[in-house]
Amino acid sequence: MKLLIVGGVAGGASAAARARRLSESAEIIVFERGPDVSFANCGLPYYVSGEIAERSKLLVTTPEQLRTRFRLDVRTRTSVEAIDRSAKTVRVRDLASGREYTESYDKLLLAPGAAPVRPPLPGSDLPHIHTLRNLHDIDRIKARADEGIRQVVLLGAGFINLELAENFVRRGIATTLVERNQQILPPFDREMTSPIAEQLTATGVTLILGDSAEGFEATPDGLSVKLASGRQLPAQLVVIGIGVRPENKLAVDAGLSVGPRGGIQVNAHLQTADPDIYAVGDAIEVQDFVSGNTVQVPLAGPANRQGRIAADNIFGRSVTYRGTQGTAILGYFDRTAAITGASEKSLIQAKRPYRKVYIHPAHHAGYYPGAQAMSLKVLFAPDTGKLLGAQGVGGAGVDKRIDVLAVAIQAGLTVFDLEEMELAYSPQFGSAKDPINMAGFVAGGLIRGDHPQIDVESVLNGTAADRPCLIDVRTPKEFSAGHIPGAKNIPVDELRERIGELPRDQQIAVYCQVGQRGYLATRILRQSGFNVANIGGGYKTYRLHVPATS
Amino acid sequence: MKLLIVGGVAGGASAAARARRLSESAEIIVFERGPDVSFANCGLPYYVSGEIAERSKLLVTTPEQLRTRFRLDVRTRTSVEAIDRSAKTVRVRDLASGREYTESYDKLLLAPGAAPVRPPLPGSDLPHIHTLRNLHDIDRIKARADEGIRQVVLLGAGFINLELAENFVRRGIATTLVERNQQILPPFDREMTSPIAEQLTATGVTLILGDSAEGFEATPDGLSVKLASGRQLPAQLVVIGIGVRPENKLAVDAGLSVGPRGGIQVNAHLQTADPDIYAVGDAIEVQDFVSGNTVQVPLAGPANRQGRIAADNIFGRSVTYRGTQGTAILGYFDRTAAITGASEKSLIQAKRPYRKVYIHPAHHAGYYPGAQAMSLKVLFAPDTGKLLGAQGVGGAGVDKRIDVLAVAIQAGLTVFDLEEMELAYSPQFGSAKDPINMAGFVAGGLIRGDHPQIDVESVLNGTAADRPCLIDVRTPKEFSAGHIPGAKNIPVDELRERIGELPRDQQIAVYCQVGQRGYLATRILRQSGFNVANIGGGYKTYRLHVPATS
Repeated sequence: MKLLIVGGVAGGASAAARARRLSESAEIIVFERGPDVSFANCGLPYYVSGEIAERSKLLVTTPEQLRTRFRLDVRTRTSVEAIDRSAKTVRVRDLASGREYTESYDKLLLAPGAAPVRPPLPGSDLPHIHTLRNLHDIDRIKARADEGIRQVVLLGAGFINLELAENFVRRGIATTLVERNQQILPPFDREMTSPIAEQLTATGVTLILGDSAEGFEATPDGLSVKLASGRQLPAQLVVIGIGVRPENKLAVDAGLSVGPRGGIQVNAHLQTADPDIYAVGDAIEVQDFVSGNTVQVPLAGPANRQGRIAADNIFGRSVTYRGTQGTAILGYFDRTAAITGASEKSLIQAKRPYRKVYIHPAHHAGYYPGAQAMSLKVLFAPDTGKLLGAQGVGGAGVDKRIDVLAVAIQAGLTVFDLEEMELAYSPQFGSAKDPINMAGFVAGGLIRGDHPQIDVESVLNGTAADRPCLIDVRTPKEFSAGHIPGAKNIPVDELRERIGELPRDQQIAVYCQVGQRGYLATRILRQSGFNVANIGGGYKTYRLHVPATS
Repeated sequence: MKLLIVGGVAGGASAAARARRLSESAEIIVFERGPDVSFANCGLPYYVSGEIAERSKLLVTTPEQLRTRFRLDVRTRTSVEAIDRSAKTVRVRDLASGREYTESYDKLLLAPGAAPVRPPLPGSDLPHIHTLRNLHDIDRIKARADEGIRQVVLLGAGFINLELAENFVRRGIATTLVERNQQILPPFDREMTSPIAEQLTATGVTLILGDSAEGFEATPDGLSVKLASGRQLPAQLVVIGIGVRPENKLAVDAGLSVGPRGGIQVNAHLQTADPDIYAVGDAIEVQDFVSGNTVQVPLAGPANRQGRIAADNIFGRSVTYRGTQGTAILGYFDRTAAITGASEKSLIQAKRPYRKVYIHPAHHAGYYPGAQAMSLKVLFAPDTGKLLGAQGVGGAGVDKRIDVLAVAIQAGLTVFDLEEMELAYSPQFGSAKDPINMAGFVAGGLIRGDHPQIDVESVLNGTAADRPCLIDVRTPKEFSAGHIPGAKNIPVDELRERIGELPRDQQIAVYCQVGQRGYLATRILRQSGFNVANIGGGYKTYRLHVPATS
């Protein structure tokens, strides 16, 4: 068996190591265009500020180590230029010498990754306008930061640019983030990004939403970034992070099919239409595990697993890739935002019925010092309660809850299963009723009809005549510190006595701070015959939709 | 509906609140023998050191709050003395006045909890020998500590006494922990407790295993604790934490059946043999979700859920309790130990076939600063790979992995599902191949036969003649820093060249530091026809079984 692998980072390196473990006798050649293999892509932003201080830490392994330990023939600075499928050969170019040669294969694995999108805007070839993909890129970005620049403009507010923002802030470089959409972190639902947007602002980042770059000009001071709005942003460094495009040229030239967004098409065995050619990682299209839709998900975890699975199939094992769930996480200073499965907007787009709940628990028992707040949003099928997706934002413990929900989605569990989950509790780690259990109770109550809930959007978007009668059941003190416009304050502990103040001919929407008192108020009123629903997650959910700073 | 609830802490309070949400009209009376309802049991130890500074924080709610918000008739310092099942009444005693009266019920819920075992040893009635169950107990323990005592002896090394140990250490009080078994934390397998035992010693705790108290004597300095070994321990305070016994007298006197260890017996609806009497919490027997065995699990999470479920059933909803999984966690300073599902010793006792793997990953990407080490042990069915149990010990991130595995066990997942899990990865939170994925790979490789593994016990326990040929495939530097006695050092990177040094007529056991290089060595040797297995989890697993300090 002679296996050629194009690309030596996440998917390619995983496949190569797996291949060797499966076969000591196979000839395995890894071609990598860059100078490094298997580097820590996800760590690159943290090198800018010195949070990761040693560059060598970013090299997970070296070509030499792969040669010694795995007997891999690793050829860096080497580009595969073309595939001859009938001859089962590739044309290879040594980028240092320019020498070209042909290499034959029994099986070929494509793991070329994806390239950052770089729109052809006026002035985009000026110096100090970068994208970030590899160590070479981060070296250039860091070198520029080391020159003592004062201002950086980051175009696009996805994961990588938010991570870069943290590291520029750490260096004291004035950072402006420009995002075309009306929200940061496009995979998330907008309201769940509010706390991160607030934190960006709190740490001094200038956040510009709904705007985008139209061109760049050289100035005596560096650059000027011209936005569609007409605004001009001075900068000595620009990083474009508006998405990636699969590296599909080799595949397309060889007649292999790609999807509408350019991802190489593969079957469940990660095999292209040519049975001797496999493809993995950021370059391919995959199935979304929840929606069944075809998506491109440039994430390290799936790329690694795909590499392993492709190697298994190449060496005669029939292993299938189950699809991608899109679990992803951002850390911004001490704030965390994480997502798994479907978002609300993706469900709307897919016209798939769903319900949602919000909860705002502490990450561990409130009586133990250091409890941090979080907001969780859980999406599920309206009838069965089957989990469809979840998002969390807050401090410590968000990662844990999203991982728990990721497994629950993988297992096909329902919100009723969340009610029963027996998670590790002592006061430093959780609560006797964990946030996960609470999400289950709130969602279960919704489906069972015990706990009718109304979305903030429905309350806000109706006309004045449509609007339900809004009752704030918190204390007068909480009410006076801020409430939903139009609400009347009747504390839950007085509700039974003051029930005569409520209208019997109009829908009532009650709310409290996080939903619990509102739930009790809903139970009290329903049993007295009122048409009532609780605003799920209460005032805190309202504040996600309508941030106090906006 | 008139519902009487005996006990107002975790299960009782949960049931009462749920009952009110289900019915505004029901008459609900909660009898609590102590002065407080719904206090934070699990927080009590942290009050001793002031880690939880305000006593009021330990009161989750008050009788007054329950009266106002839930219209509950809460009667504290009130004991239910007897049940007349035919008359459907209970005899109640007001402990303050001594007044006795009768209260009738439609439904009765028993949530009396469990009492700490206090063996009748000579001198056990001396002052300053305590158990810990409620606020009154912790007040007395804290008051004694506040008197400036120098020495405390904790009898029993379960969760509560280890938490107390941390808090006595924080106060600078010399702490001795005495445990009858040869390990701390009895629910865990012994080797998984080694890192916590080491941490106890490192923080100055004197740990005495395999010994127990035989009596107490008053001394001018306070107390002397006499151990079975003859050792005498001076102390000014003793806390006995050797287990709890269900409070079953009321049930037994009423002719309700209890199990061999005293737990009140209930069906899946948490109903006793008397259809009008339910029971929940530490006082009852439950099914172990994994083994199906009958167990008593005094944990807050299950008690809370049972309270809710009993109320549902009492109000006509048919809801079943799925059993208890035994998920539990200990924090000791910055160390964590957590468990879910079956332990190895419980599987051995149940004569249930199993296999196990150990891994020793970092809690997040090693290239990002602050990665902390952990050890995970995963138990699974040998044929199907169905997950049976897991234990973790280490620093940050142990709680997350045990929660993920708890959900996986709940969902009936297998080790092959662990391989596929898509968990949240960025370098502050995890790894592209999360510890959970790694556990799946190692276990999957074992079942598939790709990665034969041998347990440390098998290597250590055999006679010299039985023992496999031990090959340490780490570097000479690692080898010289400590290795398994009798091992020969052949670094994995030299293995192919030095393959002639290995015996073809003897079983070979290879090992490295955590198992990964050993796995590659196993693959290399197997493909060359050797009879070889990897010591799962490598030298670190050996060091769990044979701690360096022992």
